[in-house]
Amino acid sequence: MFSGAQISLYPMADDFVDVIMSALGALDPYRDQLRIETDDVSTLLVGPPEVLFRAMRDLFSAAARTGTHCVFSATISRGCPGESDDAICTSSHFDGPLAPLAERQESALAAVRKAPDMDVFAVGQLSLYVLGQGNHMDEIYGCIDFLKQSGTFDKSKHFATKLKGDTGALFATLEQAFCHFGPPEGHVTIDLTVSANSPSAR
Amino acid sequence: MFSGAQISLYPMADDFVDVIMSALGALDPYRDQLRIETDDVSTLLVGPPEVLFRAMRDLFSAAARTGTHCVFSATISRGCPGESDDAICTSSHFDGPLAPLAERQESALAAVRKAPDMDVFAVGQLSLYVLGQGNHMDEIYGCIDFLKQSGTFDKSKHFATKLKGDTGALFATLEQAFCHFGPPEGHVTIDLTVSANSPSAR
Repeated sequence: MFSGAQISLYPMADDFVDVIMSALGALDPYRDQLRIETDDVSTLLVGPPEVLFRAMRDLFSAAARTGTHCVFSATISRGCPGESDDAICTSSHFDGPLAPLAERQESALAAVRKAPDMDVFAVGQLSLYVLGQGNHMDEIYGCIDFLKQSGTFDKSKHFATKLKGDTGALFATLEQAFCHFGPPEGHVTIDLTVSANSPSAR
Repeated sequence: MFSGAQISLYPMADDFVDVIMSALGALDPYRDQLRIETDDVSTLLVGPPEVLFRAMRDLFSAAARTGTHCVFSATISRGCPGESDDAICTSSHFDGPLAPLAERQESALAAVRKAPDMDVFAVGQLSLYVLGQGNHMDEIYGCIDFLKQSGTFDKSKHFATKLKGDTGALFATLEQAFCHFGPPEGHVTIDLTVSANSPSAR
């Protein structure tokens, strides 16, 4: 299944280019497991979710550790019928048939509990979209139930769910939301914003 | 139909708070037609698309005119089955039954031709999601065809279509994409990024 993201990093500082360039080193351990292409709006990462979410976590955490107010934005997608499959995306996340919702919520919570501590606090919000089926809200509500129990839940907003916590737990929560709601072979996307060091939150 | 957006503005500068605060004046002409709520991640705008897209255009254009590298990000949504309707959202965009695709593309192109010139150049990219139905790609491909003819098309990317042009034409194109692809009463969302004054593009 083709999966990946268009990502952007926005440091709110005059030296934003330096902050971005220094954070990019955090992608080095993942470069052989991802296809990466950059233009003036975003950087494409193509690869399996287990690599993709760790790479995004490490990139954002590196930028946030500078203390600069930074925002990370991503359009994440899997199973789009318009994209040809790519061997680099092979993932164990999508093995087997669609398990019952309660079972998926339990295994997602267990995965979040095992997330490493990155020692970077962030807030974020996501909108999960399950496409190509009539009962899409059942899966979206099932995902929101999981988010509420994940330990990273902050509040419900119009069009999005807001999270907060350590970037380890936060990106683990996002990976589980992306992979286990909507069918294994389904078209699922996330519209994501993550923010650290905002003066508004102080 | 409930419609609105969670929006954020990211000026890549040490004085980002000043850039944001001064641009917010551009929302003043629309304040009585929108419900507006802000937290540390985004600002909610609830209202009809004809007001929403003009308000987003004017806010972003005001920030871009400072010459600072600015990015505008938005999660735009209409018809979400989880949201109760709100009288403030009443719009003429969704009157009548779903017209044939070619007819909608023609009227969308005519609307973009009438867009005002804002004298602000920007690039952007959008992902349009049509939810709650099995043939969602037909509407998405129909929208991409319209985007290619809109005069603002730059290139196709994985997961998104990239646009460029004056912010007048750009936001008019986005409004048409949002309102006229997917059924009038359908659940449709856009994941949007717009950027100006990027050093990468120079």
